[in-house]
Amino acid sequence: MTDRTTDTVLIFDTTLRDGEQSPGCSMNLEEKLQVAAQLEALGVDIIEAGFAIASPGDFEAVSEVSRQCERATVASLARAANADIERAWEAVRHARRPRIHTFIATSPLHMKVKLNKTPEETIAAIERTVALARSLCPDVEWSAEDATRSEPDFLCRAVETAIRAGARTINLPDTVGYATPETYAAMFRDVIARVPNADQAVFSTHCHNDLGLGVANTLAAIAAGARQVESTINGIGERAGNAAIEEIAMAMKVRHDVMPFRTNIVATEITRASRLVSGITGFQVQPNKAIVGANAFAHESGIHQDGMLKDSSTYEIMTPESVGLTKSSLVMGKHSGRAAFRQKLEELGYELGDNAFQDAFARFKELADAKKAIFDEDILALVDDEVLRGHDRIQVEEVEIHCGTGPARAILTLSIDGVSQTATTRGTGPIDALFAAVRALVPHADAALERYEVHAVTGGTDAQAETSVLLSEAGRTARGRGAHHDTLVAGVRAYVNALNKLMVKRGRAPVEAAAG
Amino acid sequence: MTDRTTDTVLIFDTTLRDGEQSPGCSMNLEEKLQVAAQLEALGVDIIEAGFAIASPGDFEAVSEVSRQCERATVASLARAANADIERAWEAVRHARRPRIHTFIATSPLHMKVKLNKTPEETIAAIERTVALARSLCPDVEWSAEDATRSEPDFLCRAVETAIRAGARTINLPDTVGYATPETYAAMFRDVIARVPNADQAVFSTHCHNDLGLGVANTLAAIAAGARQVESTINGIGERAGNAAIEEIAMAMKVRHDVMPFRTNIVATEITRASRLVSGITGFQVQPNKAIVGANAFAHESGIHQDGMLKDSSTYEIMTPESVGLTKSSLVMGKHSGRAAFRQKLEELGYELGDNAFQDAFARFKELADAKKAIFDEDILALVDDEVLRGHDRIQVEEVEIHCGTGPARAILTLSIDGVSQTATTRGTGPIDALFAAVRALVPHADAALERYEVHAVTGGTDAQAETSVLLSEAGRTARGRGAHHDTLVAGVRAYVNALNKLMVKRGRAPVEAAAG
Repeated sequence: MTDRTTDTVLIFDTTLRDGEQSPGCSMNLEEKLQVAAQLEALGVDIIEAGFAIASPGDFEAVSEVSRQCERATVASLARAANADIERAWEAVRHARRPRIHTFIATSPLHMKVKLNKTPEETIAAIERTVALARSLCPDVEWSAEDATRSEPDFLCRAVETAIRAGARTINLPDTVGYATPETYAAMFRDVIARVPNADQAVFSTHCHNDLGLGVANTLAAIAAGARQVESTINGIGERAGNAAIEEIAMAMKVRHDVMPFRTNIVATEITRASRLVSGITGFQVQPNKAIVGANAFAHESGIHQDGMLKDSSTYEIMTPESVGLTKSSLVMGKHSGRAAFRQKLEELGYELGDNAFQDAFARFKELADAKKAIFDEDILALVDDEVLRGHDRIQVEEVEIHCGTGPARAILTLSIDGVSQTATTRGTGPIDALFAAVRALVPHADAALERYEVHAVTGGTDAQAETSVLLSEAGRTARGRGAHHDTLVAGVRAYVNALNKLMVKRGRAPVEAAAG
Repeated sequence: MTDRTTDTVLIFDTTLRDGEQSPGCSMNLEEKLQVAAQLEALGVDIIEAGFAIASPGDFEAVSEVSRQCERATVASLARAANADIERAWEAVRHARRPRIHTFIATSPLHMKVKLNKTPEETIAAIERTVALARSLCPDVEWSAEDATRSEPDFLCRAVETAIRAGARTINLPDTVGYATPETYAAMFRDVIARVPNADQAVFSTHCHNDLGLGVANTLAAIAAGARQVESTINGIGERAGNAAIEEIAMAMKVRHDVMPFRTNIVATEITRASRLVSGITGFQVQPNKAIVGANAFAHESGIHQDGMLKDSSTYEIMTPESVGLTKSSLVMGKHSGRAAFRQKLEELGYELGDNAFQDAFARFKELADAKKAIFDEDILALVDDEVLRGHDRIQVEEVEIHCGTGPARAILTLSIDGVSQTATTRGTGPIDALFAAVRALVPHADAALERYEVHAVTGGTDAQAETSVLLSEAGRTARGRGAHHDTLVAGVRAYVNALNKLMVKRGRAPVEAAAG
């Protein structure tokens, strides 16, 4: 555990905590459990499932992820306060491998402005709260929030205190994305060299990408002795996001010659993890994103194509297959039967229960009737929609639209708690009219539509559209998704999906989440 | 020019060349001229406007950008062939400050597989072609394609040859995105130290982001002596893209304490440049992109918000205003008149000619009638749509749609070369039906719809939708954009916009572009 000569770097995933703190990224329980399952398949070592004290919903998510995980350590975040730490333990105690992750700010600015604590008071708080955490849980991680802007002597003293009090992982986050590879590595070298009991802890990175340096800073710190990295799928997270797991893992793999470290990441699960997280959060990955962007393995120019045909290594340092990307190909049509559809789902990595399979197959046949060519992406969208659909009180039954350059009119039938109800409304456009119909049928005056996005899943004009809707109400947000070959139907499905989630969330307190 | 003790790093923008090589990113002449104008406003030192020999369209673009630019050097790419270099010169000779940028691969793999040249033949080609370029143009840049996988002794010999033959800038690209900060910096130190005439050239970086290290590699090379960086707006470019100008410039600015270099970039123009390029290419910037992502300056969690309210520097290392981002605010409504609209446009940085202003104002009033709240983004979308619209042969006149969970029907009227024509069609969804109507009115059997995307510009249900369509035909691609408060009308406008561009491009040969 304290052996810095090991070449294995532990991956601490915080997609469900720091990632979920991105504006618009909040996930419900079911979605968090799906992401957690995929994170285990991806081989991450530690899953930070949330911030237990932040809300009953967060507590439930950490508890349920703890119960579900079979291999990964499950952590909850906790501030330097007894109630936080006790609440974190109540949630993670259900895990096979529980961890409490507690933190306090150590920079002069944060101690003064945010905590209103003197350095001495901060040291005392570290000693007391880490000891409490350790008395509850054998695996305690401590983070020095804003470490990169902390005074070095004080940071060393704080780290020494935390280790003495029982922390076995010491995280030195670049909370504001301020570090460069040189400064970040120097901090790790300095702390590890100067703290007398440093050999009793694993040192951890946590990098934000505000200057575009998150991955480079992480790798530099590993070379300087860090053996855990906190990161997220697709690099989601506060502001410009966290360092992306997929980039860190593939950099060490592709350039093992100069970075002789390994992770437990199963690289072929990367694409699936990326798509699941972007599907659930609605955060699209830009085409030119490293590793998981749509263009990451695409070659346009004549010279590149020529080289690629002669020898793919002329312009490619890793293969699409190595990160689980299978070449999209025409695979299924209206004549495909249940057996073929089940086999295809297995190839794509899905195992559905009988009911879910029958539902998905029915929707596949419906799609196959409407759409000439069905690609893997269409099936993924369709199945994801099926898997992500909860037990919803409101369901979309029938949609009729009349629109164009003139005013728009919508006739919508919803099933609400099993009863069909219809509304006819007008709007400035078809979506406006449709959403007005939803509001007429399900009054929710306090919920605001924050975002409405449409993404064609595959290229054609008869592609399935995938839409996402973000609603907010009194500090809570809910994101809904919908897929259909008609974008308008997909849109209203997404809206109703978000509304269902919002109704579930209404029992929860506003989320107050954390830093790091 | 050869003074590596200067602290000024030249910014060589290749958005119009390497960026345009991204699949789906091709731009037409008018769009390239708009981007070039914004690049000059942004303060880039060199604009690589294209690859003159690739097609008549590329030649025209390089020539016109050369004529337009007042301050920036304008470069054209050229392979190591006489015809390439002569064609590049014909295009850039119109510039106040012309540059020929010629390249050849120097890695064993590329020389063998792609060029079928021995190392000796490669050296001879460098000598001959750089000398030819220098005989035409006083400013010659030479690039060692795949430098990071080249044999160091041979690379030094090639660089020495290029400088002796007259190159005044030496670019050492990480063509495949393979480098790490340490290896990339070491290559620059090695070459600069070992090449006897190194003091006669400015050394340049060109980094790709395949491992997420493009920006870090660039900065490491600057510390090792490079004084020019090749990069793109939003990091667009082949595969995972190039290092992003905005990240490089802001990293040096924010961390000037550890990276004591400066650029001529006008940081407050960054947001406008980013939006223009994403608007024209249709390449959306992901929310968690550094500097220019929608969330880059957003704070969601309670703890962060609390800290921000107390002191914004607790979680923010630069201000949104420093990169030209003004806080979006409700500004205009249906009662706003021409003067207010003109003032708003000026605030947003637009100066429209009289006709364009009248058209934009008419569309603004139309939008203000249909939409309750009008945000800066709505106006930007509206004006961009106006500015980007060419002199189109085909115009959308009237759209009528009937759709929903049943089959969809579209009635579309287009003006084609001034004559109104109407078609009624059916489809699997409203877009499918609409696009079928376009195809019925304007037959274009060889053009395939590669991508269709919808982006709500602002959050509300009555937001203006912005859509983009990518068509391809015989190796040419055309991207169209459309904005309207009805997504379907925006969609058909984008389709028709792309079709107009494709008709313009039909006279051009397929683009064969370059590496680097």
